[in-house]
Amino acid sequence: MPAHPKAPFATAQDAEDAFYDALDERNAEHMAAVWGEGPDIACLLPMHPLVFGEDVRGLWAPMFAAGAIDLQVRHLRWVVLGDLAIHYVQEWVNPPAGQRAPPPVYATNVFRRDAAGWQLVAHQNSPTPPPPGAMGGPGPAN
Amino acid sequence: MPAHPKAPFATAQDAEDAFYDALDERNAEHMAAVWGEGPDIACLLPMHPLVFGEDVRGLWAPMFAAGAIDLQVRHLRWVVLGDLAIHYVQEWVNPPAGQRAPPPVYATNVFRRDAAGWQLVAHQNSPTPPPPGAMGGPGPAN
Repeated sequence: MPAHPKAPFATAQDAEDAFYDALDERNAEHMAAVWGEGPDIACLLPMHPLVFGEDVRGLWAPMFAAGAIDLQVRHLRWVVLGDLAIHYVQEWVNPPAGQRAPPPVYATNVFRRDAAGWQLVAHQNSPTPPPPGAMGGPGPAN
Repeated sequence: MPAHPKAPFATAQDAEDAFYDALDERNAEHMAAVWGEGPDIACLLPMHPLVFGEDVRGLWAPMFAAGAIDLQVRHLRWVVLGDLAIHYVQEWVNPPAGQRAPPPVYATNVFRRDAAGWQLVAHQNSPTPPPPGAMGGPGPAN
């Protein structure tokens, strides 16, 4: 049985809340319960290689041992396509006192519903573009 | 009707091949035929903001006018979940003669099957991690 009081998750939002709560609480057991089973789950964290399957489950304990992860998540868009849900968010790191916040990163969370409930099958981070005029890159849209 | 000789696409691989062919050929009409309809398609290109819906369709013509895009795509993993398919790849840019190739980027392509066929609903790029020892980041897996 998944070792999370809310698993199996009734909604994709419940699964996502559990993902970010597990990050916040550095709870690798809860984190493991958020993810689907099998070789095809995928996770791409900033500055990390893309990993699949059991390697996803191995990511968290060393990261949680290394220190606190204090994120704020801003909703961009929910996409629901039957038994699939994709959530696009921005993650903002709350910096330690006196330090400047790093730029936010995009995160895409893909959830799948099976007979038991919703589980996370993919998490992918990407950098946000530099501010207008910086590095010659394009600025934010609009 | 989609203005692509192979649309609607019989497989997700056909849709993906059409995506990279449209990039290679700088064919915005073919590119438009690869994508699903509606506000929920999403595209995140390197150094660009994440865009949705009609803004995805507006990305290509200016990019194609700016110059050639010479990519090699390396397969990492196909995930098929019913009417959803996710393809994880690496994109390697072939540099102009005499220039060093930039590091590869990860790309995730999400395809959805509806009554007509397969279409692209999300494309997301992420940087690959720096080589071992560079910038203090982790190296590639294995």
